[in-house]
Amino acid sequence: MFKATVIIRRRPSILDPQGVAVEKGASLLGLSNVKETRIGKFIEFVVDANDKSAAEKEVNEYCNKLLANPIMEDYEFKLEKI
Amino acid sequence: MFKATVIIRRRPSILDPQGVAVEKGASLLGLSNVKETRIGKFIEFVVDANDKSAAEKEVNEYCNKLLANPIMEDYEFKLEKI
Repeated sequence: MFKATVIIRRRPSILDPQGVAVEKGASLLGLSNVKETRIGKFIEFVVDANDKSAAEKEVNEYCNKLLANPIMEDYEFKLEKI
Repeated sequence: MFKATVIIRRRPSILDPQGVAVEKGASLLGLSNVKETRIGKFIEFVVDANDKSAAEKEVNEYCNKLLANPIMEDYEFKLEKI
């Protein structure tokens, strides 16, 4: 069994409207020192696999088919044996 | 200037419907070895502050007032001087 931690970010060249909106809210609240906010996803799950390469294959498939949008997002992941 | 990286997770006791939905999709696609999927947020931004404690204060305020929902989410962050 492995614990997988996946980080999904929008590609740097792609606008992040959610980040822009939150930052506008920040400046309205007087937080004017925060800049370049980008909001991505942080996903954790357990993979039931015997070895690391099988777990990696499963995580890649899960990311490519469901978790990330391969057109505008990049993902990276870490696996930890549990 | 500091680069801040914030991870926001739902509290473990709170149901994550997005995670449940994605996992259902996974099992329909034949990925039956992934379990306990929890979807959080991964947020990156730049804080314009002279010292680390001022930056920490700003990040805490940003998280509590805008980024995280203090009722059902926890956050943690890292600061890196840039």
